[in-house]
Amino acid sequence: MIKKISVLGSTGSIGKQTLEIVREHPDKFEIVGLAVMKSIDDLEAQINEFKPKIVAVFDEERAKTLINRISGNTQVRWGIKGLIEVATYYETEVVLNSVVGSVGLIPTLEAIKNKKTIALANKETLVAAGDLVMKECKNNDVNMIPVDSEHSAILQCLQGEKSANLDKIILTASGGPFRNWCYDDIKQVTFKDALKHPNWSMGKKISVDSSTLMNKGLEVIEAKWLFDVDVEKIEVVIHPQSIIHSMIELKDGSIIAQLGVPNMKLPIQYALSYPDRIQGEVTKLDFKKFHTLTFEEPDLKRFPCLSLAYEAIRIGGTMPCVLNAANEMLVDYFLKDKVNFYDIPYYIEKAMEKHRPFSYQSVEELLEVEAWVRAWIINELR
Amino acid sequence: MIKKISVLGSTGSIGKQTLEIVREHPDKFEIVGLAVMKSIDDLEAQINEFKPKIVAVFDEERAKTLINRISGNTQVRWGIKGLIEVATYYETEVVLNSVVGSVGLIPTLEAIKNKKTIALANKETLVAAGDLVMKECKNNDVNMIPVDSEHSAILQCLQGEKSANLDKIILTASGGPFRNWCYDDIKQVTFKDALKHPNWSMGKKISVDSSTLMNKGLEVIEAKWLFDVDVEKIEVVIHPQSIIHSMIELKDGSIIAQLGVPNMKLPIQYALSYPDRIQGEVTKLDFKKFHTLTFEEPDLKRFPCLSLAYEAIRIGGTMPCVLNAANEMLVDYFLKDKVNFYDIPYYIEKAMEKHRPFSYQSVEELLEVEAWVRAWIINELR
Repeated sequence: MIKKISVLGSTGSIGKQTLEIVREHPDKFEIVGLAVMKSIDDLEAQINEFKPKIVAVFDEERAKTLINRISGNTQVRWGIKGLIEVATYYETEVVLNSVVGSVGLIPTLEAIKNKKTIALANKETLVAAGDLVMKECKNNDVNMIPVDSEHSAILQCLQGEKSANLDKIILTASGGPFRNWCYDDIKQVTFKDALKHPNWSMGKKISVDSSTLMNKGLEVIEAKWLFDVDVEKIEVVIHPQSIIHSMIELKDGSIIAQLGVPNMKLPIQYALSYPDRIQGEVTKLDFKKFHTLTFEEPDLKRFPCLSLAYEAIRIGGTMPCVLNAANEMLVDYFLKDKVNFYDIPYYIEKAMEKHRPFSYQSVEELLEVEAWVRAWIINELR
Repeated sequence: MIKKISVLGSTGSIGKQTLEIVREHPDKFEIVGLAVMKSIDDLEAQINEFKPKIVAVFDEERAKTLINRISGNTQVRWGIKGLIEVATYYETEVVLNSVVGSVGLIPTLEAIKNKKTIALANKETLVAAGDLVMKECKNNDVNMIPVDSEHSAILQCLQGEKSANLDKIILTASGGPFRNWCYDDIKQVTFKDALKHPNWSMGKKISVDSSTLMNKGLEVIEAKWLFDVDVEKIEVVIHPQSIIHSMIELKDGSIIAQLGVPNMKLPIQYALSYPDRIQGEVTKLDFKKFHTLTFEEPDLKRFPCLSLAYEAIRIGGTMPCVLNAANEMLVDYFLKDKVNFYDIPYYIEKAMEKHRPFSYQSVEELLEVEAWVRAWIINELR
């Protein structure tokens, strides 16, 4: 049986690796839909290779340029409506959502309502709206499969275990490029330093998030929703080699861990093949090469973003959405050299202090909160 | 539901820890039978505490001494027949077999024929007669649950995974007390050096086996039978901290590992509670304390016993029985200061060379092979 897949964010790092896996397994997977923000050159090549039934470009003008460039039967759509059309296309069975930022939220929700299995690489969907999204999954009996290596590890460790026996989730974190830097040195870093991740080759936003440990904070929030555990049961441990991708502790004290080389291909492939596994062209872990694994506690003083994430999810309601939206803005500013490294946690904390959290009922309310956060930061940093 | 348990070898290290777990969980486990080789003092105290329905002492004279010492309704038996009676006692649901040496084999087989679940801590049962024992398990639809921390780890990692997806078993080994010693120094060691195991507190036989790596070799053979895999798919990696108790590699390249403090209580408890888990008084793993895990390849030149075990199981038939019987004899001689450390592999190899392996059909044939091995070694070392 061939699984029919739509990829949102197909020209990004995760999207490209997803297509690689589909290319390697034509007997198992087929691309029916692709969506991008604006990279129409890459998308054009993907259309020629995979011949999807439908594609979407968020940017309307570029979508129209694309239409003139391609032949064949691929339908072209645009805007958020276009992304939703790809995500809910009738042939789609699995939606792999690797769009960056909160634009991924609405297509995910629509796909869930249309009973598509979700392979989620878009962190913001669960961070901002975990409550709502998981409720929709339950109502529609939809499987939400994480693509992130950490959450994929936890899902793998949990196979065959009763969720009632889960005592603790231990998320591992590489510690990022500034793990051994002192506070005063970290204060001076630029986005160029932050983009030098020691183990993973990733997009810019997630590289900065890794350097602040906000990435791990967002993953704590995601883990809470994905595995339905209290946030106090989620622990972060720094593991610089990124070989153990995460662990669970069971109620008898036994710890189960998932290991592999630091490469996103395996977790992406697992999300596509889940609950089965398939032989893939994945580099095997060699203990002769990775002969030493170390662990240390995260330093919340040098990396306050991790504390802020715990605080946001403890408060709950709209607060994680504020954390996430503020972080998105500030990382963008940092990448444009407009703010310093420690301005990121500073303004996130200020935004969280300003915000009066409430229990939201709809995406519209979250979008309003996001709009407020953006306006507030623009004003603060004017 | 209370599980009714008989313990063979109740006064040994594993036996005592089993009783500790039963003591901690009177709502979950009950002792109905106990058996020992000769330690009637300890057994008497156990009878007074656990009030088993039946006990056995291998040594007939001591059994009769015990009868005169105890009051209450506990029946006392002796000899191999006594051990079998305890193992097959009608109320027994789980037989935890932690007898040392090949005397554990026949009671295990009889328990299997009586459809008792087996919690196996007696290595020799599977090493000498894995083929026969697993066939009986299949015929009688009996669960064979390993107690060894390594095999328990593998069983835990395999939960929820299809066995067809299992690509490799990675058994971890501490490396024993002579891991960093050079060949010439190891040559000189006495049994006192060998009994100083770095991580585990264990009985004498298994401590010596750990120092020669024969223990790991026997575990390779056990793993082959327990998990029905080709021996070429079983790999040994030295992991001196004994935190990762073993791992499996799945066909997509993902590795699942089980971790915990080096303590037998958890695997014993898992064997009793399997397939469920129960909260136990087990020390939790603290990554602040165990912050560095290392891996290295085993050195087959300094530790030839590991190679001999691989060779024996590759040859198959009666050869692993020869390996095991020769090892038992030689470890005993080594503990009595009658042979040197490297005499252990030397005479095992010689015995294996002398033996003409064949495909056995019954325990009697194995017992004859064992008798031949013993006679041959006695003659060689006269």
